Amino acid sequence: MSPAAAVAPYNPYVCISEKTSVHDTSCAHNHNNKDEKFLDFKESDKLFGNDIVLTTNSDDPNMKPIPLNWGASDPFMRGPIVATRYRDGLIKHNTIGAHSGPYSIYHALAVGTNNLSPNHKADYTGAEPPFNFKQQPQWSGVEKIVSMDPFGHLAPWLFSELSQKENVEIRPTIAVTKAFLQMAELKDEVIKGNLLVDGDIVTNQNGDLRITKIAVEPVWYLPGVAKRFNISEATLRRALFEDTNGMYPELITRPDIKTFLPPIGGLTAYIFGNPEFLSDPSKKLALRVHDECNSSDVFGSDLCTCRPYLIFGIIEAAKQAQQGGVGCVIYFRKEGRSLGEITKYLVYNARKNFGDTADEYFHRTECIAGVRDMRFQALMPDILHFLGIRKIDRMLSMSNMKYDAIVEQGIPILERVAIPDEMIPPDSRVEIDAKIASGYFTNGKVKTQDELKGIKGRDWV
Amino acid sequence: MSPAAAVAPYNPYVCISEKTSVHDTSCAHNHNNKDEKFLDFKESDKLFGNDIVLTTNSDDPNMKPIPLNWGASDPFMRGPIVATRYRDGLIKHNTIGAHSGPYSIYHALAVGTNNLSPNHKADYTGAEPPFNFKQQPQWSGVEKIVSMDPFGHLAPWLFSELSQKENVEIRPTIAVTKAFLQMAELKDEVIKGNLLVDGDIVTNQNGDLRITKIAVEPVWYLPGVAKRFNISEATLRRALFEDTNGMYPELITRPDIKTFLPPIGGLTAYIFGNPEFLSDPSKKLALRVHDECNSSDVFGSDLCTCRPYLIFGIIEAAKQAQQGGVGCVIYFRKEGRSLGEITKYLVYNARKNFGDTADEYFHRTECIAGVRDMRFQALMPDILHFLGIRKIDRMLSMSNMKYDAIVEQGIPILERVAIPDEMIPPDSRVEIDAKIASGYFTNGKVKTQDELKGIKGRDWV
Repeated sequence: MSPAAAVAPYNPYVCISEKTSVHDTSCAHNHNNKDEKFLDFKESDKLFGNDIVLTTNSDDPNMKPIPLNWGASDPFMRGPIVATRYRDGLIKHNTIGAHSGPYSIYHALAVGTNNLSPNHKADYTGAEPPFNFKQQPQWSGVEKIVSMDPFGHLAPWLFSELSQKENVEIRPTIAVTKAFLQMAELKDEVIKGNLLVDGDIVTNQNGDLRITKIAVEPVWYLPGVAKRFNISEATLRRALFEDTNGMYPELITRPDIKTFLPPIGGLTAYIFGNPEFLSDPSKKLALRVHDECNSSDVFGSDLCTCRPYLIFGIIEAAKQAQQGGVGCVIYFRKEGRSLGEITKYLVYNARKNFGDTADEYFHRTECIAGVRDMRFQALMPDILHFLGIRKIDRMLSMSNMKYDAIVEQGIPILERVAIPDEMIPPDSRVEIDAKIASGYFTNGKVKTQDELKGIKGRDWV
Repeated sequence: MSPAAAVAPYNPYVCISEKTSVHDTSCAHNHNNKDEKFLDFKESDKLFGNDIVLTTNSDDPNMKPIPLNWGASDPFMRGPIVATRYRDGLIKHNTIGAHSGPYSIYHALAVGTNNLSPNHKADYTGAEPPFNFKQQPQWSGVEKIVSMDPFGHLAPWLFSELSQKENVEIRPTIAVTKAFLQMAELKDEVIKGNLLVDGDIVTNQNGDLRITKIAVEPVWYLPGVAKRFNISEATLRRALFEDTNGMYPELITRPDIKTFLPPIGGLTAYIFGNPEFLSDPSKKLALRVHDECNSSDVFGSDLCTCRPYLIFGIIEAAKQAQQGGVGCVIYFRKEGRSLGEITKYLVYNARKNFGDTADEYFHRTECIAGVRDMRFQALMPDILHFLGIRKIDRMLSMSNMKYDAIVEQGIPILERVAIPDEMIPPDSRVEIDAKIASGYFTNGKVKTQDELKGIKGRDWV
């Protein structure tokens, strides 16, 4: 008896595809609607079976989710993240959503076009982390880590037997690797004598940096995420479902499932020096938390300080490692304050058309987006807990939102370091002065509203 | 009568929240399941109303989608993209999915935490495109453009009246703006004399570039996307639904709705010189299509040629504009061949652990991901059609997949330009030689399998 077939008699949302393509009105077609093309799912049955389960349901006695005890310190007591419907996943999955965030859509295209078998079993031989992060006390409990799986980098190896026994797919949500960074700005720093070649951190005259890095895919423990935002789990689930126009009904129908893989980008942590020093309070830590800005990070748009601050963060992180400490730059996929590039560009246009003065900087975003910033920093500190960070000696960020979120998580920040003035592109003064006036850290003077009126960006024409 | 209430008597998937939180077994709770926390959605009713509609249905006579005739040349005949459930959107939406791709999740958090009103009406004053792209013949018909809305940059202004009249939200899916690019590599090119300051394209001794750019959010016309992939619309919809573990049941239950906003990143087109020249066959065009690689594009990881090739593309695009032609660099959010960073890092580890020779390069990816590449180039040429491009004089890419996809769309490529050897980091020879052996363009010699065995990357230790 196939899992789906087992579900059929109990689940109100199952359609048998024989029916689907002919009668069943609870499903995929509509004979009254002129412009509607009749969809025959038979061809797709070869790939996905004869049943289309629109959503599963907690009431269904056939649902047997693999036990998951978030916060357990023993990974086997904690249990694996199981999201995929394939094999016995439909009845045994214990997580809502799909792996790889937005790339789940490309995975679907690969399967739908017969380029990838739905039954592909990954061979992870040799892909083990080249550095083993020691388990930290922060990995346990439901308070400190709520938006990533602290065992995510070990999942395929820890749970390979269970994956076989239960006939479910278990995928990693974290990956660790090493790399060498080559950046034109670093070469300049070596030439200027600001960055010294030591052969270990800075490996040569070119300024190449040796680093360890970690990519993390979000895994949300919904009760914990709701608590961070001071809302109920029900409201969080309802908002995620309704505001996305109906994405993942299991957010509503599977209250027994507590974890969610949202289709958003995750983060990458770049570590300079010995990663073990991150959890050693006797070693000094220089840290930058950087939120993505493709326009500047990649293309160097001079309207903001993003890449300059990122470069400053990398240099300071490398120097801290050279001085016997450790450096860390964490890159979050939160393009344009998590508003995305479309909104960002619209705001650019409105700013330029209204004279682009610092006093109007946030107002223009609010007119279009309804908020000045859609980044939430409440979940950001999870990666610091994962890395075992207990204090930050030098915080390479001026953001008060980031500062507050980290300190609220019980991680003290001993020093805040502003971007040096000479690294600020002239046209980005509007942004930085507006931010400083709104609460960003500065060693300098905070400008008044009147003074902000005088801070004007370049015209396009 | 509220839209949802109107739906209630007809839609098998509606739960009234009074019931939801007390009896209705078709919904959000389960009294038999020990580890299940009872969810009371009442609090969230204040934000989202009393009904939770798990999915809508084509059979429901209350569904009144705003007419959308994909491919119509008159935008008013074509109709707007309407995705959001708010106001009358639940019954009038004509598109599956949510705006802003992955950022729809952050939008949901903003609404769920009461930082953003679900009824916020965007004020787009001043956000108009600073450059008006002339409507191109390619914008019409259902063949040339299937993955973006050719009227997406004008939507808020074209349809503001309709938005009021129908009481639905209409958002832009394209944004156009201008910028100045500041990159350390460009400064070096000016110093070397490879890039000349003309005051227009290259604006100063710093090598700052004046550009126009366009951000595009994917809008998929499902029958057209299916045709590009040579599969049926039903199989495409089924794959998108099943392989994501049940994202958007409307892919199954609303065959009358033909458009989908997938939660993936879009693209950004950077234009060097006069954008009008893009659709003028008498002007030479230098073009690079670049797929995202955050590791290299931002951090300069030397394991691949991504940023070096991007920089080369930007320089050549700028030079073409200086010579009276036009340049274009298109940046696609397809991190790590659309496999994402987690898979990319796992493959890096496996490569290094297996000796990292070019003959093994693709095999290591296939072991883990099941495919060597999850990018699909079939939809990529849409942006070229949008820009009115009818031929490419200099294609700044060696990819045969990109070449084939563009030529198949009837856009001839007159010259292919490989990245200069001196720009290839030593450790990335493994990648580039493996790609050349697999069909990438080269002016040089294609290495044999035996020779590829000899191309070995640096060890980490």
